[in-house]
Amino acid sequence: MTTDDETQIHRKAANREAPHREATNREATQYRWEGVDLLPYKEDERALFKAITRQVLFSDPKQSSELRYFEVAPGGFSTLERHEHTHSVLILRGRGHCLVDGTVRQLNTNDLISVPSMAWHQFRAAPNEPLGFLCMVNSTRDKPQLPTGEELATLQRDPAIAAFLRGDLP
Amino acid sequence: MTTDDETQIHRKAANREAPHREATNREATQYRWEGVDLLPYKEDERALFKAITRQVLFSDPKQSSELRYFEVAPGGFSTLERHEHTHSVLILRGRGHCLVDGTVRQLNTNDLISVPSMAWHQFRAAPNEPLGFLCMVNSTRDKPQLPTGEELATLQRDPAIAAFLRGDLP
Repeated sequence: MTTDDETQIHRKAANREAPHREATNREATQYRWEGVDLLPYKEDERALFKAITRQVLFSDPKQSSELRYFEVAPGGFSTLERHEHTHSVLILRGRGHCLVDGTVRQLNTNDLISVPSMAWHQFRAAPNEPLGFLCMVNSTRDKPQLPTGEELATLQRDPAIAAFLRGDLP
Repeated sequence: MTTDDETQIHRKAANREAPHREATNREATQYRWEGVDLLPYKEDERALFKAITRQVLFSDPKQSSELRYFEVAPGGFSTLERHEHTHSVLILRGRGHCLVDGTVRQLNTNDLISVPSMAWHQFRAAPNEPLGFLCMVNSTRDKPQLPTGEELATLQRDPAIAAFLRGDLP
């Protein structure tokens, strides 16, 4: 990928352009949708996530929510974070685990997960399988918060959560 | 199904109850989600649709959109209609065709379809396969409009649309 490509991807992401406002049929090949940019998960220099990509499937000013597809490669994970806005998640592909609001849950294809306001949450792919999921989110939303050292230590006091955060999972 | 069950289903649908506001993980078995009611597609006495069910996967007052799953049995179809609100559709299962805004399109699993404002649209399953799709829609939205005889005749002037509306498809 050239620097120009990267610049364009970042500009598109920053502008929240609606990729398709007209009637369209966009096909997928192996969970890559035509006409949909494959985006970095976040623009963040810190290594708070691993091996995860993002595709914005629907982002239209006439709709009040967006539908995104995230794919975590085997062994990868999303950022551990919380925010006021809620997430509605459907597992589209693969297996893994999530931590949501103090509970570690196993994830299989087609599972539905609700992430409530201000719940700490993280998604992890299985060691040998990707985890692909749809996430519906309000178009207007607050920024994620990261845990302080103290908040992280509190979470880690639960052995199941500590194992999840270490990636020590079946 | 007893009459009491039916009454309850209709009441729940009418109230637009949020089925799950807390953190949950709801599993699916053959595209039936646990804790999610299997609803009639519409409460309408007219035979404008055939062999289609609805599951409201996410409907939460903190989110401005809903995510529904519709499943059309082989040979079935949704209502031909239009409205101001837009639909964002992802084909989750099977094959079929849709008519959107004057164009008939073949549908395969994971295809994305945008239905613009006031576009006539209908979804049809293949003769020998179901068509299951996710539909993201604003929680607050206008009611669908049905075509007049004249509007239907105008659509049918296109041979491809006429064949689609007759269910005369591969």
